Amino acid sequence: MPPEKPLSGETALIAALQRLFEPPPPAVALGIGDDCAALAVAGEDFLLWTVDTLIEGVHFDLAYFSLPQVGRKALAVNLSDVAAMGGEPLYTLLSLGWPRERDVAGALALGEGLAQAAKEYGVAVIGGDTVASPGRVMVTLSLLGRVPRGEMLRRQGARVGDRVYVTGPLGEAAAGLEILKRGLASEAEMHRALVEAHLNPRPQLQAGRILARQKFATALIDLSDGVATDLGYICRASGVGARLPAATAPVSPRVKTLAANLGLDPLDLALKGGEDYQLLFTSPAEKAPALFAAFARAGLPAPLPLGEIVPGAGVRLATPEGEKDITGQGFDHFRLDL
Amino acid sequence: MPPEKPLSGETALIAALQRLFEPPPPAVALGIGDDCAALAVAGEDFLLWTVDTLIEGVHFDLAYFSLPQVGRKALAVNLSDVAAMGGEPLYTLLSLGWPRERDVAGALALGEGLAQAAKEYGVAVIGGDTVASPGRVMVTLSLLGRVPRGEMLRRQGARVGDRVYVTGPLGEAAAGLEILKRGLASEAEMHRALVEAHLNPRPQLQAGRILARQKFATALIDLSDGVATDLGYICRASGVGARLPAATAPVSPRVKTLAANLGLDPLDLALKGGEDYQLLFTSPAEKAPALFAAFARAGLPAPLPLGEIVPGAGVRLATPEGEKDITGQGFDHFRLDL
Repeated sequence: MPPEKPLSGETALIAALQRLFEPPPPAVALGIGDDCAALAVAGEDFLLWTVDTLIEGVHFDLAYFSLPQVGRKALAVNLSDVAAMGGEPLYTLLSLGWPRERDVAGALALGEGLAQAAKEYGVAVIGGDTVASPGRVMVTLSLLGRVPRGEMLRRQGARVGDRVYVTGPLGEAAAGLEILKRGLASEAEMHRALVEAHLNPRPQLQAGRILARQKFATALIDLSDGVATDLGYICRASGVGARLPAATAPVSPRVKTLAANLGLDPLDLALKGGEDYQLLFTSPAEKAPALFAAFARAGLPAPLPLGEIVPGAGVRLATPEGEKDITGQGFDHFRLDL
Repeated sequence: MPPEKPLSGETALIAALQRLFEPPPPAVALGIGDDCAALAVAGEDFLLWTVDTLIEGVHFDLAYFSLPQVGRKALAVNLSDVAAMGGEPLYTLLSLGWPRERDVAGALALGEGLAQAAKEYGVAVIGGDTVASPGRVMVTLSLLGRVPRGEMLRRQGARVGDRVYVTGPLGEAAAGLEILKRGLASEAEMHRALVEAHLNPRPQLQAGRILARQKFATALIDLSDGVATDLGYICRASGVGARLPAATAPVSPRVKTLAANLGLDPLDLALKGGEDYQLLFTSPAEKAPALFAAFARAGLPAPLPLGEIVPGAGVRLATPEGEKDITGQGFDHFRLDL
């Protein structure tokens, strides 16, 4: 087995922080290192718990995000963490950092976007705090959800021979961001769809529940940092590798067209671009017929095959020139060595 | 009854946000508007849930806070919210915003302060996220705790005739901040104690549990924004007023000395300065003997009488010149009108 790659910046920082903290008590079914923490405090269910922060200039640019869209996206990225455990969302708290020099009507516009999304997904906003922020809009949501104890899906559990799937085509959010950053947004349907994927990601809660309830998946994560990084988390947690044939990667056709127009590598957008917020999961090959049938019955698009789980470690892209290790090459807040 | 004062900035913003959100489902025993939300999901207990953000330049200055102190204080202010419900803390999630240009060793130093405080208070750090932040260190903690259903204390419940108490002398944190801002910190015992009160507040968890378990308090809050604002919250939630005799206000003797030295008003520091993180509570007069005895048995300092609950609305300071309404004159992140 090849040696594990050293941890990348963000992963290394989290691992180093984790070593500082005491091991959790037994009621904590799942602590640091997955998409949510899980607590055995609510009868037959695990309580799922997550927190995510969006910061202006890092996670969103108000040149192209409206404030309601920021509120909406802040909820979506937290919902995606609950989807990535196979769970359903319940409640959220809002911690809003608002610059004193900005009209406070904007804080209410952000709140309206959050309120609308919360209503849509059946989540109750039940508290939080508001603080002055120096210059940047900042939104932190903490979210509680639940999942029946026997159904929770984790990053660990992938087995050699499992197939790797995603719930939707890859690279759209990254392509949408390229369009926005280059000032190319237009009314053309392709541009609108890609920009929408960046501005308004759709957490795959229904797909996550099907995977959990019917035990189709052996491991599950959501795509926030990109396949190269997020599938790398599954590989590390499961003690396996993954092999992705480049030729059949489920790159969004729109992304292929845009990449050709702009001279970008569509595989980079699809595998290393972040924020698709699709679910990525592994599933035994023999479950494929039932898996596809269940998604079809639910009216969901068929899962897209991405590759397979293999012995070893890390995410390897198979090209005509051979295999390349792309583990950890997705978005990383901290490209640094600890 | 005099008319209610218009809401101040932060309170008005929270009230306006609250109107945007749907009413919570029945399992939410307590939603927006108290120190924690409370959930009826954990058997005989309510689950208490809070989130608080500290931002560099707003809540702390790294010119005088060490990074471990920031981690420690981030936990303390969340613990204080749980104390203010009469509860005990259980678990926390960390969302850390760290500037890319800062040595990441500092993030670990902050984590060490958090880890040490978490161990001390018996809280498990069980997850979170780390993000790049533009220029400022930001720490958000979300905390879960619990309180037996019959014991939870709220901001509402104060009754005319109740006495108003605080668990410790007032103004020390505000005085400590004055010392730090003026560069006057010295090894003199008085300076050290005041500075310590600002840098390292002590959440009054034990006092909160005694008040809750023995049903001494009719209403309870923690002092984060100052008496003028926080007692104002109790008055508003309870539909009563409060009268505080200026001559007997429990101003810390150290604060009196410092105020005299610097030409400051000790009552302003004590009643309008924030961040003392003492508990402020109301309690029927006839319970005073049992209350004092219980605190003495627990080895806690005796509660300090601050005033009494009266008919009407708002917080009134009684001076030889007459009564002044000081409601809402504590710290406010947003001094503005909505």
